[in-house]
Amino acid sequence: MLRQFMHTTLRNLLTIWALATSFSSLAAHPNLVITEADVAQMRAAIQQPGRFSDAFHKMQTRVDKEIAQPIRVPVPKDGGGGYTHERHKKNYQQMYNAGVMYQLTQQAKYADFVRDMLLAYADLYPTIGLHPKRKVKAQNPGKLFWQSLNESVWLVYTIQAYDLIYNSLSQAQISKIENQILKPVALFLSEGQPSTFNKVHNHGTWATAGVGMAGYVMNQPEWVEKALYDLDKSGKGGFIKQLDVLFSPQGYYTEGPYYQRYALMPFVTFAKAIDNNQPQRHIFEYRNGVLLKAINTTIELSYAGLFFPINDAIKSKGIDTSELVAGVTVAYGLTQAPGLLDIADKQKQIILTGDGLKVANALDKHLEKPYPFSSIAFGDGSDGKQGALVVMRSQLGGDQALLFKPSSQGMGHGHFDKLTWQYYDHAEEIVSDYGAARFLNVEAKYGGRYLPENTSYAKQTIAHNTIVVDETSNFGGDVDLANQHAPTLNYFEAGSFGSVSNAEIRSAYKGVLLQRTLALVKLPELGQSVALDIFDVNSDDKHQLDLPVHYQGQLIDSSFVIDVNTQSLKPLGQNAGYQHLWLKGQATPESGLARVTWLNKNGRFYTQTSLVSGDETFLFTQLGANDPHFNLRNEQAFIRRVKHTSNHRFISVLEPHGDYNPGKEYTLGATSNVQTLDVHQQGDLTLVNLKMAGFSYLIVINQDQKPDANLERQFTYNKQPYSINGRLTVYLLNQGQDK
Amino acid sequence: MLRQFMHTTLRNLLTIWALATSFSSLAAHPNLVITEADVAQMRAAIQQPGRFSDAFHKMQTRVDKEIAQPIRVPVPKDGGGGYTHERHKKNYQQMYNAGVMYQLTQQAKYADFVRDMLLAYADLYPTIGLHPKRKVKAQNPGKLFWQSLNESVWLVYTIQAYDLIYNSLSQAQISKIENQILKPVALFLSEGQPSTFNKVHNHGTWATAGVGMAGYVMNQPEWVEKALYDLDKSGKGGFIKQLDVLFSPQGYYTEGPYYQRYALMPFVTFAKAIDNNQPQRHIFEYRNGVLLKAINTTIELSYAGLFFPINDAIKSKGIDTSELVAGVTVAYGLTQAPGLLDIADKQKQIILTGDGLKVANALDKHLEKPYPFSSIAFGDGSDGKQGALVVMRSQLGGDQALLFKPSSQGMGHGHFDKLTWQYYDHAEEIVSDYGAARFLNVEAKYGGRYLPENTSYAKQTIAHNTIVVDETSNFGGDVDLANQHAPTLNYFEAGSFGSVSNAEIRSAYKGVLLQRTLALVKLPELGQSVALDIFDVNSDDKHQLDLPVHYQGQLIDSSFVIDVNTQSLKPLGQNAGYQHLWLKGQATPESGLARVTWLNKNGRFYTQTSLVSGDETFLFTQLGANDPHFNLRNEQAFIRRVKHTSNHRFISVLEPHGDYNPGKEYTLGATSNVQTLDVHQQGDLTLVNLKMAGFSYLIVINQDQKPDANLERQFTYNKQPYSINGRLTVYLLNQGQDK
Repeated sequence: MLRQFMHTTLRNLLTIWALATSFSSLAAHPNLVITEADVAQMRAAIQQPGRFSDAFHKMQTRVDKEIAQPIRVPVPKDGGGGYTHERHKKNYQQMYNAGVMYQLTQQAKYADFVRDMLLAYADLYPTIGLHPKRKVKAQNPGKLFWQSLNESVWLVYTIQAYDLIYNSLSQAQISKIENQILKPVALFLSEGQPSTFNKVHNHGTWATAGVGMAGYVMNQPEWVEKALYDLDKSGKGGFIKQLDVLFSPQGYYTEGPYYQRYALMPFVTFAKAIDNNQPQRHIFEYRNGVLLKAINTTIELSYAGLFFPINDAIKSKGIDTSELVAGVTVAYGLTQAPGLLDIADKQKQIILTGDGLKVANALDKHLEKPYPFSSIAFGDGSDGKQGALVVMRSQLGGDQALLFKPSSQGMGHGHFDKLTWQYYDHAEEIVSDYGAARFLNVEAKYGGRYLPENTSYAKQTIAHNTIVVDETSNFGGDVDLANQHAPTLNYFEAGSFGSVSNAEIRSAYKGVLLQRTLALVKLPELGQSVALDIFDVNSDDKHQLDLPVHYQGQLIDSSFVIDVNTQSLKPLGQNAGYQHLWLKGQATPESGLARVTWLNKNGRFYTQTSLVSGDETFLFTQLGANDPHFNLRNEQAFIRRVKHTSNHRFISVLEPHGDYNPGKEYTLGATSNVQTLDVHQQGDLTLVNLKMAGFSYLIVINQDQKPDANLERQFTYNKQPYSINGRLTVYLLNQGQDK
Repeated sequence: MLRQFMHTTLRNLLTIWALATSFSSLAAHPNLVITEADVAQMRAAIQQPGRFSDAFHKMQTRVDKEIAQPIRVPVPKDGGGGYTHERHKKNYQQMYNAGVMYQLTQQAKYADFVRDMLLAYADLYPTIGLHPKRKVKAQNPGKLFWQSLNESVWLVYTIQAYDLIYNSLSQAQISKIENQILKPVALFLSEGQPSTFNKVHNHGTWATAGVGMAGYVMNQPEWVEKALYDLDKSGKGGFIKQLDVLFSPQGYYTEGPYYQRYALMPFVTFAKAIDNNQPQRHIFEYRNGVLLKAINTTIELSYAGLFFPINDAIKSKGIDTSELVAGVTVAYGLTQAPGLLDIADKQKQIILTGDGLKVANALDKHLEKPYPFSSIAFGDGSDGKQGALVVMRSQLGGDQALLFKPSSQGMGHGHFDKLTWQYYDHAEEIVSDYGAARFLNVEAKYGGRYLPENTSYAKQTIAHNTIVVDETSNFGGDVDLANQHAPTLNYFEAGSFGSVSNAEIRSAYKGVLLQRTLALVKLPELGQSVALDIFDVNSDDKHQLDLPVHYQGQLIDSSFVIDVNTQSLKPLGQNAGYQHLWLKGQATPESGLARVTWLNKNGRFYTQTSLVSGDETFLFTQLGANDPHFNLRNEQAFIRRVKHTSNHRFISVLEPHGDYNPGKEYTLGATSNVQTLDVHQQGDLTLVNLKMAGFSYLIVINQDQKPDANLERQFTYNKQPYSINGRLTVYLLNQGQDK
């Protein structure tokens, strides 16, 4: 008892002492992402069958092959993709993995491999200057690499590898490695390039992460302070400032999920190292736990395992990317949230760290539960008020997601697509975004870089599902101008009736107010949800308005006759992306409901029913004009066009229906169930009468945009009294008796 | 011991007696596909956990719902797809399933349901005449259905349902049901429509199956004889004649696998009933076991679970169709082949029969082994000599299949595609066939029938990967003419070097000999296979020759500059399918190697390298012109065109390569490895020098077309002696040293 007391007291005292001294020169190794305590547990785990042990053996096989090769540390010569560039990239990965193997197996050969490679770098580095292939005007040249971003990544991995084998080294080796390579690199990336190191930008995150971690390992507390708070320790730059600025309060990164998962990597790695070395900083709790939010936001911004492809995104990126594997692993280590295990299970990768062991053990015990995807508005910008990215989800009638994008431009990779939307159902894109025009690393396709068509088409407004005024893109396609203006999210609400949101922007087109209401409305009597879209355009002058729907699938039917260009095709326009669209046909449906039905590869039909008054022309297009190198996918769209108008309300409802199963030889519900679509405005209230399959619904949306408005309303519809308290209510007006 | 002897002797005597009396009036029930002995085992099996029990419980849940509904036997009124049509189709399925449930559970409610429905039919049938929606000119009207085909199917199911509940019925019920419905239907389908009943055609198979099974159940041996040997028992028609004529000796059905699996159903069902009632007929051994061959051929004619889509096939049909489930189940019952279990496992359906129980038990014990897919030439026509359908497979470098089609026309659903080919790799179509232009049962798409574009495009020669002479289809698109002429399969060989085949046809175009050699060649040093294509055209007069490659994927690169029509598109021609092709661009590559590379959705690159001499123009097309209803998929092709020529040899090699993985951010091997492609003819021998990635191969094909030719040859190449004994040999000329 006394002994137990003494023991506890001693431990407490030691803890207090550790906190007080912040971090000491007697630092243990390893102690970055992987700690000594982790290692003990990991060594035990690899003796037992299970996911962790499987991952270890797989990695050991790989590392054994790698360390059997001669060490190659070539003089830097090539730019991105070239031999020396790729070699130095491989080297840091191999050093890190061999370092982990050393800790897990305690076999000298792994440490020797890392040691010898580090010594080779120590020999090389003092002999080289700036990289010969550095870009002339760029502010951030590297030495080992053509740009310092790669050098920062090199340091992040290499300092961890060094930490992992530190205990195997002699003092002479330590001295040579630290003085001839690790410290010079860290100094080069910090004092040597202040503009990048202090920059509140992803490049700065990698630099501060590398330098800060080097500070922990090589006992340079000043480096840590500078990494966290700017070279001058003012807090104007540095990792903490990056945490303040680069994510919104909801953890959204303005370039979108494709870039967010990439940005996450240095944040998560450095934060984990900070937490292990200086838990008193409570880095994961900083800004209401913004880093954990950022990890979860990245997950939330996916559908069927793939990220929503906004901005310059490549569509096949998803939750199984290595960066998000690292993020989910650390987040699980912190939270033990069973939903994260669901994601980890789908990622099918176990990381050889302490947190990776926790994930592996939990998955071995089948502790995972479905990730609780939610309907949510992610505020954009540091303050969360530069517009928002809105996700609406419904499970009624299958897994559906509606993405509404009244977000800010998202910098250079942003698209001119204010207030666009995307719609997903049954694991497929239905109303889609082109994403980036790029074949990553395919040399024949413009060197694997962004294609010229990325600018001439994919970024342009017409490539998205939102209004184009007078055949020009938002902000005239000026990215600097676009970066200065964000839409306003007027409201978002998710509840038992579904989700609804409204946003507006006045600056995308001079003198034109664009305001869109999108709702994913649940209709439980029909066992399904529908997407309601009301897009208001108001301006002083008359304009041409185009509203595209980029649909995925085969056109099946329309309620009106399309005048199809069967004998020749011409581009729809000459600029702003229009030059890439072949005009396949057109029609001007009569006043009433105008239906377009298509069949997606998921075997379901989709009908967009538009309420028109005879002034909308429907243009049917196919992508591929002015595409001399076959760079574009030949996708389909229809564009609703109104000419010479100053005010127009585009109204439509999108409805999934039916089942096409030629394999089993049946087709069900191939035609739309929408019978009536009427929209009235009653003050703030938008009243939508939607009759489907005999069921007559009154969908009520409260559009009051006053801040902190009281949302309770009484109103009369067809002489009957109704009420709403909130943004969205749905009344069933009948019992489907007249089906 | 004595008792045992007596027992055995008695059993033998009984067996002899049973064979002698053929089948008696004391027939047991049930005794068609399901026998009394089966039932005993099935009843035991549903008491045990396992696949059979699972399937039983699933079916019971379904049947319980169905029998809870009121019985509806409406007066026939509607044609195909209409209410009464669909109702009567559902009725026979429900009766059959309820009958099975009765046998398995012995619960009266199931038998009562079947009984009451049969009695309702017995009340209805005497009151109706020919169906009001029968087609005026058709020779085969039904009574319950608009065509007698449906009525035959009705009888096949209903007679089984009756057999299954027979023992529950009173003599009065038996009398009413047999005399007022079952016998009248059987007589209507036999004596009442001799032209259909005797027809050697799938409609005849259904009719004879129904009537023959009715003969077994209702003790009418004469009906069985007529079903087997024609109404006049001459053997000119009937089931046996159908077995003689409708399948080739290799078990191939001339319309192709999509229709073959449908045709199988009545064959398998009736044959199983014959085998159970009259095993002495050895029906499954008939014609060297042609029925088992037909089942296996249907499996062999699939890739990645889907049937090769030749002729009017809908692409999503595959091995999991109910007809092939029935076929595989019966075949497994007869053979216990573990490869069939592999297919049954992928079908994920257990049938509630005795054979279904065998399948379920074997799968429960994991006895399945991979189905031994092979390279094989399936002779076409009753004699197997009306051309052939050739399948070549390779597992070297991933699962690949090459389908070569020098088959006969395949009747009304056949396409004008003599000597076409298709190529598959890594689970996807690479060089593809359009299949049928049809959206099955989608009312808005031409009533769900074959679309007009099926005739104007999909059947036309240009829609396939074979030569079109002077922009006209084979046989001028005349199906009657086409049915009279088949190509000649000159040879087929599969061996350690790969597979090779050659076929020719002189009748597809007057005065033009088309001869094609296709080979799937294994290159073990490169760990891959390539497809070699040599297409010779020889004619007296000068013609325009077009050879399309319908490729699946995005065009990545070509070794020549394409003159692309960026500002307007026009159809390539006016007739024979050409009117549906937009001409996107053209090029006339210089003499040498002309490469076209595309990227498939499976993430691999494919390069077709053509050896040209400056006289071939490459036309790049996209499907979709003259398509006023958006009925066509907008697929891509390139067409090699030579004008004003009487003799031309088209030479090419198709090579899969690389890996495009934007999700993991890497791209490997995006460019072709073909460095040299030279072809020389040395007498009968075609010598192909193919140099890839530094390895120089000599591919030798012996084209000797004399019957029973001695295939051994000595020859000299580059002053070195070589030999071949067979059709295909591959020599590695170097060791890849100059890579």
